[in-house]
Amino acid sequence: MQPLAGYGVSKVLESGHSDYKKGDLVWGFTKWEEFSLVSPTLLFKIEHTDVPLSYYTGILGMPGMTAYAGFFELGSPKKGENVFVSAASGAVGQLVGQFAKLTGCYVVGSAGSKEKVDLLKNKLGFNEAFNYKEESDLDATLKKYFPEGIDIYFENVGGKTLDAVLLNMRVHGRIPICGMVSQYNLTQPEGVTNLPNIIFKRVRMEAFFVNDFYHLYPKFLEFLLPYIKEGKILYLEDLAEGLENGPKALVGLFSGRNVGKQVLVVAHD
Amino acid sequence: MQPLAGYGVSKVLESGHSDYKKGDLVWGFTKWEEFSLVSPTLLFKIEHTDVPLSYYTGILGMPGMTAYAGFFELGSPKKGENVFVSAASGAVGQLVGQFAKLTGCYVVGSAGSKEKVDLLKNKLGFNEAFNYKEESDLDATLKKYFPEGIDIYFENVGGKTLDAVLLNMRVHGRIPICGMVSQYNLTQPEGVTNLPNIIFKRVRMEAFFVNDFYHLYPKFLEFLLPYIKEGKILYLEDLAEGLENGPKALVGLFSGRNVGKQVLVVAHD
Repeated sequence: MQPLAGYGVSKVLESGHSDYKKGDLVWGFTKWEEFSLVSPTLLFKIEHTDVPLSYYTGILGMPGMTAYAGFFELGSPKKGENVFVSAASGAVGQLVGQFAKLTGCYVVGSAGSKEKVDLLKNKLGFNEAFNYKEESDLDATLKKYFPEGIDIYFENVGGKTLDAVLLNMRVHGRIPICGMVSQYNLTQPEGVTNLPNIIFKRVRMEAFFVNDFYHLYPKFLEFLLPYIKEGKILYLEDLAEGLENGPKALVGLFSGRNVGKQVLVVAHD
Repeated sequence: MQPLAGYGVSKVLESGHSDYKKGDLVWGFTKWEEFSLVSPTLLFKIEHTDVPLSYYTGILGMPGMTAYAGFFELGSPKKGENVFVSAASGAVGQLVGQFAKLTGCYVVGSAGSKEKVDLLKNKLGFNEAFNYKEESDLDATLKKYFPEGIDIYFENVGGKTLDAVLLNMRVHGRIPICGMVSQYNLTQPEGVTNLPNIIFKRVRMEAFFVNDFYHLYPKFLEFLLPYIKEGKILYLEDLAEGLENGPKALVGLFSGRNVGKQVLVVAHD
């Protein structure tokens, strides 16, 4: 039996690689186990320890880099632009929204519960947020929040949401595609019928994979660490304690129960 | 009653604009009439007259710039890449295919008749071509011609073709979207169901409008004129004579009857 794989923070106990020595903290693709043998591929040494170490599984790790690369590199945001984020209270979405605000954009998020919508509006600084499950006409909802249209849609869900967004993009709009989570478990994917709309609006849609952007990691830390230390960016985590509670935490992700990045604490330093 | 508008070549008879004087040849957005009053917006002076003047309605005009901007600027082609062009015998598609060959790419085109397929393979230098009307399983057809997948799909048609292409893109593939002509006259657009495929392949789809690229016109002429003069690029035209034959020529476009760029000769110089 193989342990599950996932992003984690670890302390080096022994190393055969010249870049890593005993006592170093690292983050990267590790396993759900107390002691791991990991390869240095896609492993990052943790240089800044004046922030919670759990942040390296989230805001300072893969989800943070995903939000950063998708929003800044693919989204090319400009001050004053209109940004829409789906799955906006998720590990990536909550950061995209805050990056958009820091850039001087107007940002609206969608999420799947009243609690999450409240968080977006009252804690995370989104201009507006709505519960997509309560909207019967997403096109009309988007027209209400974006009477002038959307410049950047950060795409996490696909399907019906994307189809409504395509009716509401502005000229030269950008759609960085991070995921289409609504489509993955369907036996028959929903058809997107509004693609021809992107022609007269000259829209760019681009799917990306965070691994193609890790060369930006130092620039990303330089950008983000000051905001974290000054409290100008919040990051919601849902901490569970003990490897034995891992399965329960994992299941919670699929019921939409947890709020913020789910982190499992295997051991304290 | 207003005359129809379209791209044409004209000789200046009188000018109130300092950039144009009597006798200058120009191309741009003019009208279907013998004498026109035109504004200098989107009008280009013709500097090179050692090629057929009709070329400025096609290969050296808007369709040429469309193929150039879409293929080179959005497609970012590299030698050895695999290129697929739909509506490949059209005014734009026939040039994209030839630009791809000049770049050292492998290029396959689709068109709607045996005659057009023969032209693509035997006159225009495409590596392969097929009649999409004779293919019952476009996915299988594309897998046959592109066993390693498609790097650049120059999109002219949308719908079923795009859906099959999405199953066959390579990692970091690009889809410049010039048009989706199969969808324009449908009351209910066909759904594109395979969009989620672009995520793991990190594909970029980008719609464009040639008017955003005319700053490249001098660079385009510098690239293209030598190839035309050396006979390394062919351009198929279908010349009709006389304004009175315009309507018949226009109708032919919609029945798929004509081959190559339809040009109407109103007057000889």
